[in-house]
Amino acid sequence: MPEDKILSCLMQNIPTFKDIQRAHKLIGTYIHHTPVLTSSNINSLTGVNVFFKCENFQKVGAFKYRGATNAVLTLTKEEAEKGVATHSSGNHAAALALAAKNRGIKCHVVMPHTAPRPKIEAVRHYGARITFCEPNLKSREETLEGIVAQTGAAIIHPYDNFQVICGQGTVAKELLEKEPGLDAILAPVGGGGLLSGTALAAKSINPQIKVYGCEPVNADDACRSFKTGNLIPSVNPKTIADGLLTSLSELTFTIIRNQVDDIFTVSEESILHAMFLVWQRMKIIIEPSSAVAVAALIDNHGLFAGKRAGIILSGGNVDLLNLPFREE
Amino acid sequence: MPEDKILSCLMQNIPTFKDIQRAHKLIGTYIHHTPVLTSSNINSLTGVNVFFKCENFQKVGAFKYRGATNAVLTLTKEEAEKGVATHSSGNHAAALALAAKNRGIKCHVVMPHTAPRPKIEAVRHYGARITFCEPNLKSREETLEGIVAQTGAAIIHPYDNFQVICGQGTVAKELLEKEPGLDAILAPVGGGGLLSGTALAAKSINPQIKVYGCEPVNADDACRSFKTGNLIPSVNPKTIADGLLTSLSELTFTIIRNQVDDIFTVSEESILHAMFLVWQRMKIIIEPSSAVAVAALIDNHGLFAGKRAGIILSGGNVDLLNLPFREE
Repeated sequence: MPEDKILSCLMQNIPTFKDIQRAHKLIGTYIHHTPVLTSSNINSLTGVNVFFKCENFQKVGAFKYRGATNAVLTLTKEEAEKGVATHSSGNHAAALALAAKNRGIKCHVVMPHTAPRPKIEAVRHYGARITFCEPNLKSREETLEGIVAQTGAAIIHPYDNFQVICGQGTVAKELLEKEPGLDAILAPVGGGGLLSGTALAAKSINPQIKVYGCEPVNADDACRSFKTGNLIPSVNPKTIADGLLTSLSELTFTIIRNQVDDIFTVSEESILHAMFLVWQRMKIIIEPSSAVAVAALIDNHGLFAGKRAGIILSGGNVDLLNLPFREE
Repeated sequence: MPEDKILSCLMQNIPTFKDIQRAHKLIGTYIHHTPVLTSSNINSLTGVNVFFKCENFQKVGAFKYRGATNAVLTLTKEEAEKGVATHSSGNHAAALALAAKNRGIKCHVVMPHTAPRPKIEAVRHYGARITFCEPNLKSREETLEGIVAQTGAAIIHPYDNFQVICGQGTVAKELLEKEPGLDAILAPVGGGGLLSGTALAAKSINPQIKVYGCEPVNADDACRSFKTGNLIPSVNPKTIADGLLTSLSELTFTIIRNQVDDIFTVSEESILHAMFLVWQRMKIIIEPSSAVAVAALIDNHGLFAGKRAGIILSGGNVDLLNLPFREE
């Protein structure tokens, strides 16, 4: 396909704000409209007025429930009857499992056998059928293809999916409805579903707002792709932020390249420090992937001095019996 | 003193709802007006509509900041100049230290050397002078007397204090302003400051509401005192709920006996289970003392079936490097 044709196809797949509004209406009675918290402690530490959108309090403990619910609810009756299937390192799997359960349809999940135990248990708890695979994209995709060939289930990709991105965009929409005066929003970026939806929603509501992606320097495909203008997937990334191991897709890359202002990268040490800080000072549980956005704000606090910054705390699923905090 | 004279003295020391309203106005700009969270998960688990008043998000991580702030702000200029002093196992000490710092006065704190490290660090952080003592009431009181003899500082008792009780009463006032339709409120009870304030405020706002105290069976002085009608202090209580080791005073016992509907006791196992459940499902950090009230609701959920119950999550100060969760 010639490049302009690809671009045109992609353009048709890019959600508008109307699509995000429609998604919000559709999923409205299923999701939690999560609170926005502030911390005088973190404000005085950073010199920034920070507003934390608590998707760690979302059902299944992550924003992923929004996108998965929207994807499941927008299937036709015929599609839905064959069930849904996905591969995911965890939160999307649990989200899709619960969304499918709510609609009364089957859900097949391919998970790497290295996924955190609480995430595996959550997926089981919601009644999905799990097939384990190796922790790499090839193994995930091959295993998934096998399942779909057998069942005819609709693949709901964790982020390379129009309806999923619409659902994730409702996070920023809610945040800005609560705090319309924000100067910037920071969101973690793995596959880019959340960041895409965030940028589309935020820039539609307020074209002046800045939107930043935040990712581990150890899994910095979004940053490298953004800086070079070419999609460069990560190869075997290793980071404590287990929700951000995935790489951008053509779709999310296109949106991010056009809508996002910059991508920050943070060290593993910064992630752990930020995670500990939020637990200790705010008394809320966030997973390392959420801490990536907090770390980016702390590392770059000078850029936001005196401003109002929203941070999307993407999830709160951690193994409480195996925490990463150690004596310093 | 004859008994009726004692009773009359005590009556004069019992806050009215006006006193609590006045306290709320006075401390209003200092405190966090903490959110009330719900959990569809815990609702469906218990069959109760539960409303969690998150004083774990309060400044210094506990409701104690309300009472301490009210006590410090109601001192005369002459009293304030000599500073304040207290003994406390932790949260009250940090609260008083910050309240004193806000008014620009000195704060002396007597703490048992066994107090959790984060609590000791918090007190130091707020600039108080710490004197360590043995972990028993006698050692605490003697050490405190020595400091007061030297400095003339005003003793701000953690709970046996009119203004402290008024401050603690603002928690239930806020909760009922947000959720006026509650059928019951459950609060942990140690020395009884929170429970006294809760009962006074709640029953003034709605005489039909039920108010329950919740305490570890291993530190059940409030329950035994309530059932027998005689003040029976705990002797060397041992419980993971380190904020509830103290015993009622004459003042708090008088209020509790007259205003509270019942006292529930819970096992150490129930406390740990409830604490884990709240961390895992609600993604918020509560300390064991807060979990006591959650455990009481779970143990007695039949009593609240289909009703609307408020739980005061009293604090969120735990040592993140030394958590009590273990594999089962």
